[in-house]
Amino acid sequence: MILENIRFLVTQNENREILEDIDLRIEDGKITEISENIEAEDEKIDCSNKIVLPGLINCHTHVSMSLLRGVSDDKELDEWLHEEIIPRETELSPQDVYDGALLGIKEMLKSGTTCFNDMYAPEEKVAEAVDKTGIRAVLANGIIERSDIDSRLEESREFIESFRTHPRIKPVVSPHAVYTVSENSLEKLKEQAEELDTSLHIHLSETRSENEDFKAENGERPVEFLERIGLLDENVIAAHCTHLTEEEIDLLAENSVSVSHNPCANLKLGSGIAPVPELLEKEVSVGLGTDGPASNNSFNMFEEMKFASLIQKNSDPETMSAQQVLDMATVNGAEALGLDNIGSIERGNKADLVAVEVDEAVKPAEKDRIVSHLVFSTPSVSETVVDGEVLVRDGELVEKVKDF
Amino acid sequence: MILENIRFLVTQNENREILEDIDLRIEDGKITEISENIEAEDEKIDCSNKIVLPGLINCHTHVSMSLLRGVSDDKELDEWLHEEIIPRETELSPQDVYDGALLGIKEMLKSGTTCFNDMYAPEEKVAEAVDKTGIRAVLANGIIERSDIDSRLEESREFIESFRTHPRIKPVVSPHAVYTVSENSLEKLKEQAEELDTSLHIHLSETRSENEDFKAENGERPVEFLERIGLLDENVIAAHCTHLTEEEIDLLAENSVSVSHNPCANLKLGSGIAPVPELLEKEVSVGLGTDGPASNNSFNMFEEMKFASLIQKNSDPETMSAQQVLDMATVNGAEALGLDNIGSIERGNKADLVAVEVDEAVKPAEKDRIVSHLVFSTPSVSETVVDGEVLVRDGELVEKVKDF
Repeated sequence: MILENIRFLVTQNENREILEDIDLRIEDGKITEISENIEAEDEKIDCSNKIVLPGLINCHTHVSMSLLRGVSDDKELDEWLHEEIIPRETELSPQDVYDGALLGIKEMLKSGTTCFNDMYAPEEKVAEAVDKTGIRAVLANGIIERSDIDSRLEESREFIESFRTHPRIKPVVSPHAVYTVSENSLEKLKEQAEELDTSLHIHLSETRSENEDFKAENGERPVEFLERIGLLDENVIAAHCTHLTEEEIDLLAENSVSVSHNPCANLKLGSGIAPVPELLEKEVSVGLGTDGPASNNSFNMFEEMKFASLIQKNSDPETMSAQQVLDMATVNGAEALGLDNIGSIERGNKADLVAVEVDEAVKPAEKDRIVSHLVFSTPSVSETVVDGEVLVRDGELVEKVKDF
Repeated sequence: MILENIRFLVTQNENREILEDIDLRIEDGKITEISENIEAEDEKIDCSNKIVLPGLINCHTHVSMSLLRGVSDDKELDEWLHEEIIPRETELSPQDVYDGALLGIKEMLKSGTTCFNDMYAPEEKVAEAVDKTGIRAVLANGIIERSDIDSRLEESREFIESFRTHPRIKPVVSPHAVYTVSENSLEKLKEQAEELDTSLHIHLSETRSENEDFKAENGERPVEFLERIGLLDENVIAAHCTHLTEEEIDLLAENSVSVSHNPCANLKLGSGIAPVPELLEKEVSVGLGTDGPASNNSFNMFEEMKFASLIQKNSDPETMSAQQVLDMATVNGAEALGLDNIGSIERGNKADLVAVEVDEAVKPAEKDRIVSHLVFSTPSVSETVVDGEVLVRDGELVEKVKDF
């Protein structure tokens, strides 16, 4: 397939090049050529009025919670979670988890997301929806300490073994948080991740009270605790990190931990604003996530980018440029998830791409304004391509995906 | 025309009723009937998979600045305005003002805005674009004190006299701000507004430094000053009001001044977060605006609603419910602009309406979640109707508008 006459190709390569009037060829799911006037008999998509950029990467969500979107607003995290969400979640069947995943994935594809990092249970049902629809994902059975912990740890292992050869699924390990999983189980899950050579996804320091309560009970803050038990390394992605001391930022940086920043959910539940400029200053790899749609309530990563920038600009307008947040949603997100062949448009990379229409909302269409437009100006997605497959065309899901 | 089988009709009437499976009839630009199964030979639009709500009202913008979108990010207001924007604005021709207005209006219509409050110059060119496209607007020649002030005051009068009978334009008076217009000219413009029986639109207390500098020079804060010279009353809409003391909030409330809250622009330029919950507590009429697209960079009022809610929830998740911000973007916006026949869907009101597709982003589609979805879940506009005319159909501008 050839994306032809691309008006602006936002490569997100090392030099952040934007190419104009260029063709891009996709073969066997990969980008095989980027040049002017590619001659070939392949199927062609006219992109002469489109901006093509890497598919957006959602670094933290619970996709099946789309079923719980809008059931409860106007509450802080603790009350929202324990009084509104968990009671409803206990009612969800495996079929609901599948249906919710399907609904959320369709929304993601239509708004330009090509890969997401998810934690839920039973995650086999999310994997089934990922497999069918064609999106890419990093998936984990979320583990909470209960009486059945041993069988849950075994399920986590089985899940990883079942999906480790899937072309679009990276199965990982996921203890829910330090306050819901025992030290013993955290250690076992870390061992499991090491043994199976995969990553670990955990909620960390989402609220001020979570940190304070943990310290009151355990004498140390969550990040200090995880460092002491040897859990922190380059294979860990920590969601939220809304409240960190300078020392904790240093600990995350020294241990090469990645962070998923989820600004909308953090604002909506009154959790706070994460110290993202400070994390970036220390070269922590920060991706961007929507969190679950019951606390956002959207999977739209374009919107999430705008929030990620503007909420920091309020205290310093010079921080969090459009380029920085686009990096978070693409190359940095890929790095945070340990995926080295997506996130930028370069020969040899997987063909995970998004095309945005150059309509009124992203004009004037000049090269040096394009990144600003993508982040601040509410663009409309016209095509979404994952692994070389067109899943959204002219703003609509292709029939194959729509019919699930 | 009949909007038929509307799945959810969000009336925004006094009881905030949401009707289901209902028809709505439009005749001569007005809503003439809302009931089940209206029998008539009118043209019909099937709304069985749509949510219909009042058209959104953008209470503060400079539409022609769409041409300057993306020219300068990452700067605080003062530097952005004086070093980046004003030098470029001096280069804009009247034709540019028209072209920019056209571009911005098209974007507004596609994202569900049916009325906007604008200040620029020469505003005749904005009025021309409003007249042609079919949108509704409150327009003013923005006045800044210069040597030609007398002729500018005269132009303001002429503009109002030219457009006061236009069916979709309300011409008003607009001194730019207390720091750019002399006391004498402010008084003359207030007299002009009274004499011509119209409103007054002014920037007010946008930044902390603006307040401090004014007080240092004049011995009183901007709101105090405007109150003393008799400018504040129910015919004034003040844009921003980001920094107010408790006494100033009381002064605005006592004088029935309306406020346009513009959260994205305030964040982007580092101006601050307006005390909206406190203003609402004192029953100040607060509308919502995008400000100009060079400091936002969008006209999307759905997005603006989400920002308006979430930035306040960060300090108190119970504040600024979806219903409150939807009110700001509809009924309260209409009240703030002194327009008493738009903002809610009721028999006799102007037919200014928006239809939103019930797609994946706004599901599950249950009555008690609909307002939450509209505000938090990034809905897609399918139809926009102004004064009974369909200007957007199936998400696209109708040919007549597209061709301008």
